[in-house]
Amino acid sequence: MTTIERAEVFVASPGRTFVTLKITTSDGAVGYGDATLNGRELAVASYLRDHLLPLLAGKDPARIEDMWQYLYKGAYWRRGPVTMTAIAAVDTALWDLKGKVAGLPVYQLLGGRSRDGVLVYSHASGRDTAELLDDVDRFLSLGYKAVRAQAAVPDVGGTYGVRKGKVYEPAATTLPDEQPWDTEAYLGFAPTYLEAVREKFGFGFHLLHDVHHRLTPLEAARFGKQVEPCRLFWMEDPTPAENQEAFRLIRQHTTTPIATGEVLTSIWDVQTLITEQLIDYVRTTVVHAGGLTHLRRIFDLAALYGVRTGSHGATDLSPVSMSAAVHLDVAVPNFGIQEYMGHPDEAAEVFHGGPTYAEGMLFPSEEPGLGVVYDEAAAERFPYQQRYLPVARRLDGSVHDW
Amino acid sequence: MTTIERAEVFVASPGRTFVTLKITTSDGAVGYGDATLNGRELAVASYLRDHLLPLLAGKDPARIEDMWQYLYKGAYWRRGPVTMTAIAAVDTALWDLKGKVAGLPVYQLLGGRSRDGVLVYSHASGRDTAELLDDVDRFLSLGYKAVRAQAAVPDVGGTYGVRKGKVYEPAATTLPDEQPWDTEAYLGFAPTYLEAVREKFGFGFHLLHDVHHRLTPLEAARFGKQVEPCRLFWMEDPTPAENQEAFRLIRQHTTTPIATGEVLTSIWDVQTLITEQLIDYVRTTVVHAGGLTHLRRIFDLAALYGVRTGSHGATDLSPVSMSAAVHLDVAVPNFGIQEYMGHPDEAAEVFHGGPTYAEGMLFPSEEPGLGVVYDEAAAERFPYQQRYLPVARRLDGSVHDW
Amino acid sequence: MTTIERAEVFVASPGRTFVTLKITTSDGAVGYGDATLNGRELAVASYLRDHLLPLLAGKDPARIEDMWQYLYKGAYWRRGPVTMTAIAAVDTALWDLKGKVAGLPVYQLLGGRSRDGVLVYSHASGRDTAELLDDVDRFLSLGYKAVRAQAAVPDVGGTYGVRKGKVYEPAATTLPDEQPWDTEAYLGFAPTYLEAVREKFGFGFHLLHDVHHRLTPLEAARFGKQVEPCRLFWMEDPTPAENQEAFRLIRQHTTTPIATGEVLTSIWDVQTLITEQLIDYVRTTVVHAGGLTHLRRIFDLAALYGVRTGSHGATDLSPVSMSAAVHLDVAVPNFGIQEYMGHPDEAAEVFHGGPTYAEGMLFPSEEPGLGVVYDEAAAERFPYQQRYLPVARRLDGSVHDW
Amino acid sequence: MTTIERAEVFVASPGRTFVTLKITTSDGAVGYGDATLNGRELAVASYLRDHLLPLLAGKDPARIEDMWQYLYKGAYWRRGPVTMTAIAAVDTALWDLKGKVAGLPVYQLLGGRSRDGVLVYSHASGRDTAELLDDVDRFLSLGYKAVRAQAAVPDVGGTYGVRKGKVYEPAATTLPDEQPWDTEAYLGFAPTYLEAVREKFGFGFHLLHDVHHRLTPLEAARFGKQVEPCRLFWMEDPTPAENQEAFRLIRQHTTTPIATGEVLTSIWDVQTLITEQLIDYVRTTVVHAGGLTHLRRIFDLAALYGVRTGSHGATDLSPVSMSAAVHLDVAVPNFGIQEYMGHPDEAAEVFHGGPTYAEGMLFPSEEPGLGVVYDEAAAERFPYQQRYLPVARRLDGSVHDW
Repeated sequence: MTTIERAEVFVASPGRTFVTLKITTSDGAVGYGDATLNGRELAVASYLRDHLLPLLAGKDPARIEDMWQYLYKGAYWRRGPVTMTAIAAVDTALWDLKGKVAGLPVYQLLGGRSRDGVLVYSHASGRDTAELLDDVDRFLSLGYKAVRAQAAVPDVGGTYGVRKGKVYEPAATTLPDEQPWDTEAYLGFAPTYLEAVREKFGFGFHLLHDVHHRLTPLEAARFGKQVEPCRLFWMEDPTPAENQEAFRLIRQHTTTPIATGEVLTSIWDVQTLITEQLIDYVRTTVVHAGGLTHLRRIFDLAALYGVRTGSHGATDLSPVSMSAAVHLDVAVPNFGIQEYMGHPDEAAEVFHGGPTYAEGMLFPSEEPGLGVVYDEAAAERFPYQQRYLPVARRLDGSVHDW
Repeated sequence: MTTIERAEVFVASPGRTFVTLKITTSDGAVGYGDATLNGRELAVASYLRDHLLPLLAGKDPARIEDMWQYLYKGAYWRRGPVTMTAIAAVDTALWDLKGKVAGLPVYQLLGGRSRDGVLVYSHASGRDTAELLDDVDRFLSLGYKAVRAQAAVPDVGGTYGVRKGKVYEPAATTLPDEQPWDTEAYLGFAPTYLEAVREKFGFGFHLLHDVHHRLTPLEAARFGKQVEPCRLFWMEDPTPAENQEAFRLIRQHTTTPIATGEVLTSIWDVQTLITEQLIDYVRTTVVHAGGLTHLRRIFDLAALYGVRTGSHGATDLSPVSMSAAVHLDVAVPNFGIQEYMGHPDEAAEVFHGGPTYAEGMLFPSEEPGLGVVYDEAAAERFPYQQRYLPVARRLDGSVHDW
Repeated sequence: MTTIERAEVFVASPGRTFVTLKITTSDGAVGYGDATLNGRELAVASYLRDHLLPLLAGKDPARIEDMWQYLYKGAYWRRGPVTMTAIAAVDTALWDLKGKVAGLPVYQLLGGRSRDGVLVYSHASGRDTAELLDDVDRFLSLGYKAVRAQAAVPDVGGTYGVRKGKVYEPAATTLPDEQPWDTEAYLGFAPTYLEAVREKFGFGFHLLHDVHHRLTPLEAARFGKQVEPCRLFWMEDPTPAENQEAFRLIRQHTTTPIATGEVLTSIWDVQTLITEQLIDYVRTTVVHAGGLTHLRRIFDLAALYGVRTGSHGATDLSPVSMSAAVHLDVAVPNFGIQEYMGHPDEAAEVFHGGPTYAEGMLFPSEEPGLGVVYDEAAAERFPYQQRYLPVARRLDGSVHDW
Repeated sequence: MTTIERAEVFVASPGRTFVTLKITTSDGAVGYGDATLNGRELAVASYLRDHLLPLLAGKDPARIEDMWQYLYKGAYWRRGPVTMTAIAAVDTALWDLKGKVAGLPVYQLLGGRSRDGVLVYSHASGRDTAELLDDVDRFLSLGYKAVRAQAAVPDVGGTYGVRKGKVYEPAATTLPDEQPWDTEAYLGFAPTYLEAVREKFGFGFHLLHDVHHRLTPLEAARFGKQVEPCRLFWMEDPTPAENQEAFRLIRQHTTTPIATGEVLTSIWDVQTLITEQLIDYVRTTVVHAGGLTHLRRIFDLAALYGVRTGSHGATDLSPVSMSAAVHLDVAVPNFGIQEYMGHPDEAAEVFHGGPTYAEGMLFPSEEPGLGVVYDEAAAERFPYQQRYLPVARRLDGSVHDW
């Protein structure tokens, strides 16, 4: 029997930090999994190295489901981002291996291709409306059929989602950047630039907006109602989702579609959201929600309730995760959209292969497995650099949801 | 202003592994927090050392609520055992410090003493009914007013809860022990030994039993109904709790009281269980549910719905956590019972002080703060030894909830 | 052991009536609590003097939770304004004492400071729109970032909230003033002056409005929908709240935020309002809702459901209550806003210390405890004067909610 | 127009304390109301004397509804035992006057007689089962068709409901008697004596039992299920009722009828209990639930949902209240049963007239009004003596519901 011979964890920062799991079998086959948890990377690396890797040696890499249950139930304390990201890395690597054993791209093992390619959206932003409009223009010129729009709120209103360099990377400081937040300033300003985008560029593309957990349910309801004429593809994360019932109130007031889930890590975290049809798109990811094995179950539950997928795909998903996401996206019946921000240039020196972009869509690699190779030698040129996501504070100094 | 000057994490295995956080202020005051997550200890240690400790230096140790929100919301991906245990350690250490600044035991800051002492239960077990009866006898002789009873299910039925050495320690092997499980064997046997206990020792003490997540909701309903004549204080963890609604079915069928929560780590994990009155005792702990700040909120929600506390208190809670637990237990109006297993003898060489046991009850230390001191020199004699909790497999080899 | 040695109740009318409880311990420490129930002051004074004070002598002042439960459950008939105000006075005095014993301001015992200061709103009013606009201008000049606006409804429409002297004091007559009320006149007029305020002063500050229980749920829904363009911070008390379900209808129709709770005295009075997310701000107070011990529980329940605090802070809260309110406000994570009307000048002769105002915010005292001292000698210069709140009657003479 | 000329409050303790309101009109007619709130009597007396009586002079005594709304809404802070008892006293006195003006007993004004008399139950008790059986025998011999049975729980189990003298009077000590409580001891014992009663005396009479708020919902469910063979008329106050939803759980498990309401003071306090059919008998009283005007509305809501009346009628209801209760009981269509304990002999020296007992039933006075006269001269012989209801403490010293 082929067994798992070796499992290694690599932490490197080619432009930003990625944690990568490499599993090598007794046949010499190699599978990769992404274990990146933005801002808490080393805790996942420790979870893998110190607690999971000793469990893998000698195991049958073909028993993916059994491994998932073994790691999930064996943890005793379940769920949560660190645990689910570590399990996701193992699961993803085993699917990569399974594809290689079969000589098939992973999407073929997931039921085969349901669509030609995967609709993606990217991030336009600006320090003001004018700059945002220029940026939307740029993305439309690049062929994007769906664009997320964010502009800095004037004065101390907050700047979530506004790109500084070439790629938007919020985890950019050696200690958490404490950013101000003023809800009323945001509520007064954001609708105006969304209207400006529609006024200038019309309705021939999908317009998205990310509220980023900043509003109460009622404020989100008001916002959603107000921007209805902009016909948003979605408003994302309108309110914190720990209390899933909170979305009921939003839902009573507006038909602006709702997406949520990028910070959620299990099917139970979205169970009420989906079964009560409180959202339209579920944004859980391969890397944070337990791998392909678990994410597919979330998507299946979503399909039952008419909810489509809209997975998180920020820079914090390594090319391994992005590849896995696109393989799943292309296979499931209820795919909606895939976030796609690209990666810093340095990342391409370390990760080779992966999905390809063309005309607003991503296409999975046709290589066996996930089609991504991790270049360990290249990675050594990019030692780990600690970065934190920001924290938001209201004007009175109290902590707000970032 | 007094600030946090230094924060250190210690990992040691005096009989079993404990992770301890020590915060030292610019005034030289010291506060301790427990960060032990059984079987995943080093991941929490990394979460603290690599990601949280850099955030503490220079901060005001008096701003406990702000620190909690800062760490919780600053993580972006929220909840889960590793995250909540790390936050708990910081929170507990800050309450320890606050008590020392005030010159008061922590329970005084939590509203003062609501009761003389804290009713505890301990663990009787046996490889068969006869051995169990002897063990119950032993605990009653020690003055315990409440005893949990577990016996090994014959043949391959499973041995959860059966003590091997002096203290029951399930995390005892260098790789996870794979234990067999047969639901029908358990359902046929367990009621018989619970009846035997009542037959021999009568009803003058509280009898508890731990199902340990092994049953479906309907099986749990059947079990609960069957053991009603034994008048259990509770049946613990009758079914896995990720889907909180699962308890509705149990609840429709039996008046055997239900306790759950030892693997749950936030108020949202028990929100439906409590607000729909699906449980009678909530077993969340200081160390795994975000510290005193968060656990108090869980207990207050429970009180509103007539649910009492019954916190987990196995050996995996270090004396620091046990002390914090007893301080909270003695203060809250809706305390129910506290699990108390004691610790291996070696632990007393490392942790000095803490609650005292007498006549079936625990009493908090009257020292300022939590009253526990960590002996770093002694700890060095007990280097970290990796241990795993077991995994359960059904007779067909598939993974079951352990 | 330190015990309660003496407890005294003082009733005085420095500008308006205040009932103050003073508890002296065997160590000579003194704690103060407010027991003012506007228009029913002497009944609370009797409840304290005749029924509670005999219970306090010899008790341990550190056991705040136990005292709360003892007084609450010991009353047998529970809840209600007189009972909860009397209990609040004892509870507040014991927290004041606890802070003094610890040598810490009370907010430090409540988890420490979560924000720099406390956003407040004050009351602008006018006999007509012009006068109201002048008054709003005045408050904005004083640095207020949030202003409540009320104008007298023309003819017999009612004058709730319109200031006569320097401070708005509705309890101003020796028998209840019977004021007329015409719902349609109000519904036709109030939106016009709220629009006028926004037109003149823009959206750079928070605008609040108090409906003061005068509308049916459907009328409130209509009103809320109509004033949405004014972007109110809240509409307060849109309909009577005894039947909490009544707010469901309002909630279905408008995204104007809702605040309620100033006449409610326990967590059960707001349980449905909060758990069904029918309100956005809970306005229960320290003095009428059972003191810091109970109010904190209300605020924690609110936090779980995304509801923020917005406590009542009219002149009927003595400086002791205002101080306690600000200590809690500055500590809780889900603070929203604090009402702040100030007090008549005479009050400052009797109550020394307390929170300080600057630039639209209040800041808690840094003295140990609550930082307010009651000057008994000064109080004697202001003997009790009976005053009643008004009563509203509809145009046909029937009683309406005032 | 006839007006109210004078209103006076009398506090006297003929065997126990009663607070009595006397209203005299300009025609010289006199109406009486009861304002007794057991253990908090003087606070209600103050509420009346200091705050309500000044409002009555010169008012039209015929406008009962208007007076009720004026006092209820004029209080601003609404509900609660002190407020509702004070309003009840005024309301009852005005109904007494209205009957005298009409020359009719009050029941005639309430729609006339619906039944011949009013089924009552009284209180049998004992220090053990044998003594209880004797006492049940005594009540059956006296013609009672319905008997409540309580026996002291052995050891420290609690003695609620056990008579010491001729009349059971729990408010019997100058400071609150702190009584022990052990739930398991009660649950083990109480069913045995209820069975003993049925075994000895059969099923030819109604057997009632008062749990007195001591159980959690689940414990109450278990108790109710266990005593089903005893065919109780009801189990009273199985669990505290502030959270009305708590009764849902009891209701799922047992068909033992449930009565509650003696500590509840308004229609909102029983709204969920009634509209969800969580109880079978509502025990609100004239004196604590706002008088005949408000209690009739509670009974009407109950009728809509098939709930019958079962009003509290302990010694703390003065003969004025008992008379008012019987007048209402005899009139409403959904009367169930009336508690009737009688009064100490001394009470008969002060209160003349009232309902008459015969063969297990009470019959209202046929005098105009309520038919009770308060003898002020006699009352002077019984000056106020302060008494408290007891407080219950669990075995660990924490406060329990008494």
